[in-house]
Amino acid sequence: MLPNIRVVLVNTSHPGNIGGAARAMKNMGLSRLVLVDPQDFPSHDASARASGADDVLAGAQVVATLEDALVGCTLVVGTSARDRRIPWPMLDPRECGAKAVEQAAEGAEVALVFGREYAGLTNEELQRCHYHVHIPSNPDFSSLNLAAAVQVLAYEVRMAWLAAEGQALKVEKVEVASVRSAELATMDEMELFYQHLESTLVDIGFLDPTKPKHLMPRLRRLYGRSSVSRSEISILRGILTETQKTARGDAHKRKDQ
Amino acid sequence: MLPNIRVVLVNTSHPGNIGGAARAMKNMGLSRLVLVDPQDFPSHDASARASGADDVLAGAQVVATLEDALVGCTLVVGTSARDRRIPWPMLDPRECGAKAVEQAAEGAEVALVFGREYAGLTNEELQRCHYHVHIPSNPDFSSLNLAAAVQVLAYEVRMAWLAAEGQALKVEKVEVASVRSAELATMDEMELFYQHLESTLVDIGFLDPTKPKHLMPRLRRLYGRSSVSRSEISILRGILTETQKTARGDAHKRKDQ
Repeated sequence: MLPNIRVVLVNTSHPGNIGGAARAMKNMGLSRLVLVDPQDFPSHDASARASGADDVLAGAQVVATLEDALVGCTLVVGTSARDRRIPWPMLDPRECGAKAVEQAAEGAEVALVFGREYAGLTNEELQRCHYHVHIPSNPDFSSLNLAAAVQVLAYEVRMAWLAAEGQALKVEKVEVASVRSAELATMDEMELFYQHLESTLVDIGFLDPTKPKHLMPRLRRLYGRSSVSRSEISILRGILTETQKTARGDAHKRKDQ
Repeated sequence: MLPNIRVVLVNTSHPGNIGGAARAMKNMGLSRLVLVDPQDFPSHDASARASGADDVLAGAQVVATLEDALVGCTLVVGTSARDRRIPWPMLDPRECGAKAVEQAAEGAEVALVFGREYAGLTNEELQRCHYHVHIPSNPDFSSLNLAAAVQVLAYEVRMAWLAAEGQALKVEKVEVASVRSAELATMDEMELFYQHLESTLVDIGFLDPTKPKHLMPRLRRLYGRSSVSRSEISILRGILTETQKTARGDAHKRKDQ
């Protein structure tokens, strides 16, 4: 189950933090590390701070974009400071651990996403996440070291995993509660849907690409909240395709035939 | 209450870990650091890793023995690997956070004691503790970085403290966790939306009213699952209205104007 949970570090500046994160992961039983555009990797500093978690570093996947890092995932949780313009479903670290383990137990691929040391995740990156997680902290000194943040979330994953291992019954209950994770649309499928939705909204004149306002983020929030299944995505995309044909006037032609 | 909880680091080798521990403490709202016979302190490495928690380092008390560090304490919890010859009352980090906060709230002085990077606490030191705390970890790779261990226990202290503070966090969190019930679309508003959706799908030729199949029930299931807010419903209905205009050819006319 734990192998289904990946840690994604976005655009990390300090390789020592990558090593520290790898050590924290291995301590807690996590092994899949994905690095989005790291500034300095591989690096001696990363290996030194990993202190024996070399296998996690050696197995780390380096990718160019966050989308690449999230391929196949059906649950994405991004770390965030509390105050954001657009409210988003928030978890605390404990809820994050529970949710990650619950989904991973059903076979889902889960990503825990950590931002840059100084700037965190961008709003655009945060909008790719189903949930945001905020590690409670001193408001006057709230920015945790990156490896420390990985440690806290990985620790909560392990606590939830240990609890779940003692309670196999719980897992059964979850399966009927909502769409089963095997049937959920993955992040990449959701991205294609959002692109399709956006271009359709432009086609029908509802979205002005020069003044997008918060339309797409709000729609992402709506659909991101509801664990959309593959078959639902194909219905929605079918509607979009038909709407686009209508916008191009194809529908009228077809009616005339 | 938090000022009553001190962090004691025994015979630390790497000053960077002292800095990392200071940062983790300050992030979690702890400020009292006691160093028992540190091997290298003060140090540039400590200040660098503290990243702004200089006040915690500057206020650190340096003492010669563990006894000196524990003066005034009525609750002492020592970190420990799980397997020890002498059985001792054990806590997990969550219980440790709860107990520390509970006692500190009553005015007690509490110490969380962390051992050497490679050798931990000696049996003699462990016997000075009321409780031992073990951070659950991968049995094949169980030794956490010192600052990471401080981070986990300090995090659990903060979680317990927030809970004790009347769950100020929870109240805030609920507001953003999902759509507030006052803002949710009512059942009748949802019905109007479904009717609008259905007629739009007919207009664009996606739904054949004579052969509806299970399309509307499936869309109801999707939107019904996700607690749609009033403002989201107005966005969705705005899209539908625009789609219907497009289907009637109004959009083309409008573009020509």
